[in-house]
Amino acid sequence: MSGANHPEQERQPYAPTPRPGGRSARVRADVVTATLAEVAEKGYDGLTVEAVATRSGVHKATLYRRWGGVDGLVADALTASADQPWPLPDTGDLRQDLRRITQEVFSVFTDPDLGPTPTALISAAQRSDAGAAALHAFFTARHRQAAEVAERAVARGELPAGTDGAEVVRAATAPLYYRLFVTGEPLDARTAERAADAAALAARAGLFTSALAAEEAHAKPNTTTPQGN
Amino acid sequence: MSGANHPEQERQPYAPTPRPGGRSARVRADVVTATLAEVAEKGYDGLTVEAVATRSGVHKATLYRRWGGVDGLVADALTASADQPWPLPDTGDLRQDLRRITQEVFSVFTDPDLGPTPTALISAAQRSDAGAAALHAFFTARHRQAAEVAERAVARGELPAGTDGAEVVRAATAPLYYRLFVTGEPLDARTAERAADAAALAARAGLFTSALAAEEAHAKPNTTTPQGN
Repeated sequence: MSGANHPEQERQPYAPTPRPGGRSARVRADVVTATLAEVAEKGYDGLTVEAVATRSGVHKATLYRRWGGVDGLVADALTASADQPWPLPDTGDLRQDLRRITQEVFSVFTDPDLGPTPTALISAAQRSDAGAAALHAFFTARHRQAAEVAERAVARGELPAGTDGAEVVRAATAPLYYRLFVTGEPLDARTAERAADAAALAARAGLFTSALAAEEAHAKPNTTTPQGN
Repeated sequence: MSGANHPEQERQPYAPTPRPGGRSARVRADVVTATLAEVAEKGYDGLTVEAVATRSGVHKATLYRRWGGVDGLVADALTASADQPWPLPDTGDLRQDLRRITQEVFSVFTDPDLGPTPTALISAAQRSDAGAAALHAFFTARHRQAAEVAERAVARGELPAGTDGAEVVRAATAPLYYRLFVTGEPLDARTAERAADAAALAARAGLFTSALAAEEAHAKPNTTTPQGN
């Protein structure tokens, strides 16, 4: 979610729009950048296809044809964000890894320069079905990626086999997003740290093992409990 | 948040609007009921002062004068909801109490009859500053009320002195609201139970003691650490 105005070069084009090649990918990057800037400045209510056209230099007719309208633009900006590389911490300790993750969420959303764009984007996405679907996909992808910190902890023997890694990540980050997007209560670094610690503790206690995942984990090395099918 | 159409009688009138007496309180109850019904049916985008006037039988001019417009109506509906009695569980066990609370959130929001109104109300409140302020006040009040389950656990010796009860409640409920209003991921009974268990575990481990609250707890029986002022 960079606010910089230069198009990213040769990014892998993405599913929801036609993608004939490099030029199309460049157009998309310009449109995403312009959409993010417009959403951050004016919010969903002030977002227009016209303004995105002007800012991106992409013709209005192209925007309507490829994105359908403002809701499609918002959804695609979110899809592009989900596509951004997102380096995961790997400190060798689950609690520290989760602290880094919640600290990152805290830092980004409360930073006066970095925060407004993702905040506005999430709020805008809540406004349409297309946006909500993209939001769902965005968070699902983030949870899946970040689940790796829990999977590594399982591999190290720090967490029980069958731990649902995405659920560990949800537990750590939910208290932050709850404040940011539901209650509007202030968020501080201590809350971020505490949420990570609570999630790590619950994960270690085996609260996030899923019956299904545990079964799969058991099934992998050797099938100890033969079951029908 | 009853969907019934009869006005509640002689409720205590509330701060944000003038409150000359019983008739005013009845008018307010009618208006809140009508606003909830309209929001649930049509959402924020379809909400009009006209429709609330028609449904409540209260004159449009009165609505504009007392509530200012749709945002004031939404905010006041939320304020009225916060004002509703909300019986707290008291099982004698923190984890069970928290499970009841998260089960209640789960049941209400996922119930096909009960869920749409509060869901629409929260979404509508996110759409204006007045609504956001009312939402903040609503959740702050709920956390404060529900904090009692943690305070009782402290009194029983189940939780360390100085536990921030509101934070325990936030920890238990955040994973539910996160799914409902941020990620749009499905919510099930197991998630609700797990969130309660994780919060209880973290609370027992002392993760939700606040330095300030701990100080106050110490200060109450006898002042051990004299400080300036």
